[in-house]
Amino acid sequence: MNAHALRNISLTAVRVETPREAIDTPYLMMDLAIVADRLTQLRSALPNTVILYAVKANPAVEIVGMLARSGVQFDVASRGEIDLCLGLGVPAESLSYGNTVKKERDIAYAVAVGVGRFTVDSPAEMDKVIRCLPSGCVFIRLATDGLGADWPLSQKFGCRPAQAWELMLRAASAGLEVGLSFHVGSQQRDPGAWVKPLAEVGSLMRRFAARGHQVSAVNLGGGLPSRYVEPVPRSHVYGAAIADAVAHHLGPDFDGQLLIEPGRHLVGDAGTIRSEVVLVTERATDSGRRWVYLDIGRFNGLAETLGESIRYRISTERDGGPVGPVVLAGPSCDSADVLYEKCEYQLPLALQAGDRVELHSCGAYTASYSSLGFNGFAPLRCLFLGPPGDRSPAGPPQ
Amino acid sequence: MNAHALRNISLTAVRVETPREAIDTPYLMMDLAIVADRLTQLRSALPNTVILYAVKANPAVEIVGMLARSGVQFDVASRGEIDLCLGLGVPAESLSYGNTVKKERDIAYAVAVGVGRFTVDSPAEMDKVIRCLPSGCVFIRLATDGLGADWPLSQKFGCRPAQAWELMLRAASAGLEVGLSFHVGSQQRDPGAWVKPLAEVGSLMRRFAARGHQVSAVNLGGGLPSRYVEPVPRSHVYGAAIADAVAHHLGPDFDGQLLIEPGRHLVGDAGTIRSEVVLVTERATDSGRRWVYLDIGRFNGLAETLGESIRYRISTERDGGPVGPVVLAGPSCDSADVLYEKCEYQLPLALQAGDRVELHSCGAYTASYSSLGFNGFAPLRCLFLGPPGDRSPAGPPQ
Repeated sequence: MNAHALRNISLTAVRVETPREAIDTPYLMMDLAIVADRLTQLRSALPNTVILYAVKANPAVEIVGMLARSGVQFDVASRGEIDLCLGLGVPAESLSYGNTVKKERDIAYAVAVGVGRFTVDSPAEMDKVIRCLPSGCVFIRLATDGLGADWPLSQKFGCRPAQAWELMLRAASAGLEVGLSFHVGSQQRDPGAWVKPLAEVGSLMRRFAARGHQVSAVNLGGGLPSRYVEPVPRSHVYGAAIADAVAHHLGPDFDGQLLIEPGRHLVGDAGTIRSEVVLVTERATDSGRRWVYLDIGRFNGLAETLGESIRYRISTERDGGPVGPVVLAGPSCDSADVLYEKCEYQLPLALQAGDRVELHSCGAYTASYSSLGFNGFAPLRCLFLGPPGDRSPAGPPQ
Repeated sequence: MNAHALRNISLTAVRVETPREAIDTPYLMMDLAIVADRLTQLRSALPNTVILYAVKANPAVEIVGMLARSGVQFDVASRGEIDLCLGLGVPAESLSYGNTVKKERDIAYAVAVGVGRFTVDSPAEMDKVIRCLPSGCVFIRLATDGLGADWPLSQKFGCRPAQAWELMLRAASAGLEVGLSFHVGSQQRDPGAWVKPLAEVGSLMRRFAARGHQVSAVNLGGGLPSRYVEPVPRSHVYGAAIADAVAHHLGPDFDGQLLIEPGRHLVGDAGTIRSEVVLVTERATDSGRRWVYLDIGRFNGLAETLGESIRYRISTERDGGPVGPVVLAGPSCDSADVLYEKCEYQLPLALQAGDRVELHSCGAYTASYSSLGFNGFAPLRCLFLGPPGDRSPAGPPQ
């Protein structure tokens, strides 16, 4: 199984029964039982909330199919993700087109196939949706400050309450249902991060009610974390904090739907990337620490190491012996393909070329970011371990 | 031709005769006549230098095939790129395995298929090559400071002269030919950047000669630029500066081979990305400038906008009217998918969703960096305009 032979395989197509040891690294092993467990925990933590899985986190058909069979709905970012879900038999009414930046013809396509929920954060995007959608729900996304999140939140998305208010009125005039949404930033480590945006949502909701209109749904967005190097609270802690904020800021008058869009939280901890050390060397220009080059890097799966934002837990077959500081780098000829240089990892002094290294909680935002074949390295392959009794081939929900 | 249908197409497989206007954006149009022109200019600028095309810059079979037919040799970064070249009928002796980070079994594979040139910059990598290569040339890569280069050069590659010296002696003891190489940093705008490393090469060479050994080849690396927003000197200016430095620092005693590894310089200016404006909006959080969202972004081709390092020239169908500052962003739901925010581009005030936008000099490091389908957006497609009489299907060199 060489890299070249894999070049044209989609990230969702590999389902291998070969013994693991016989498989060339790097690969991502997804344990579907952990996905199922995270879903159970989240449902218990937020019992009255509709779960929309953010397909972008890991679009493998094995995962989307399994979640569909579990009654999960889906947040989609593009026509490509809509088609992926429909192709698996997911009903269009289970989809929410959450990207606030859409071509008008893609909105029209989504409406034509039956999608009824769209998110906007600007007047121009609202115009597109109004032109395409005869009836359905338009979510208006509020900006947040993203404080407490590990993956940066830019000014790219969201509008301020004053503009949201204008958009709410326009949607209502067009006869559409109005929802409100926000995103507290990905890998949000502060369960209190939902309070401030929910306060804004509550305020807009009451003002809207005073005009005789109703906010029919509130989408709590993404942000729920995976377990990387820094500790994070468990699902139920987030659930309690969010439920409190909902009760306090939306109040007993709110009888609309609550939704949440976990991506990373459902699949991150379920994935392990198995890699091989390609080279360990000192660098004369960087004394006192070793450079460890892996066969996985920035461009074949670890894009979220950008700015060293997401810090994966790492284990090696030499663990237990003395350790020392390392810089971790990927296998390509690109100088930007350095994973961790500032946040110093400590790895065993005995580590050498050929050793196996595992990166944990890599189930989200890895394979889907993988380049098509940068430097001739194949995209990251995914293998799947199914829960007992659920190893049926991917297909329509049953 | 929708995004989903393209999901599994390799970046090199699309060769479309459809009229351009009928093709959904985004796509990369490569003009092979420009590649041929750049090659001619470079040969004229550096007449006694072997040209190794850095396949990673754009591994399309149309380009590799055309360059092979023109007598160019190849710098490869991986087993995948070796197989790509061999599959096109490129002789193995035309290949140089320039990545200094290689699995030993990949070195062994390369040796087995006939590759005879390898680059190292560390003792551990030298050990691997010595174990695998019975005869051939090992290049030892010197570190440079990368000053003057637009794409960052990290400490990831290269060793200092003292360590290079040790490696030269080891290679010679093992009966291998010894070459020296360096890389002045990608998109190097200073033609004088080759002087300092060539001085180090010359010094090592003379010291080696005094021990009775010969440096059989000097690889001048990559770094030759494309024409982005910032002006760059022409090929012949680089050629003259490099020839002067070679004459001065290697001197008349050097009768080895000179090589150079252009990637970007040969193919960058030959590519144009055609894109569509998806949304233009003000952001309440960012007053005074518009946000322009394109259907091409960081994850489907424009990876080199990281840190706003590479700044493409941009034209629109509204050019000529009044302009104003914009932030440029890509189409995905990822907050990191912002192209240019600090180096303020000015685009027409009349620009609106649906307008066509062209990004110029995009032929290098775009399609090959493209993600497999992040957010459900297809990898960047490549179309090829051949020189008259050279529109034959891709295949082995003729």
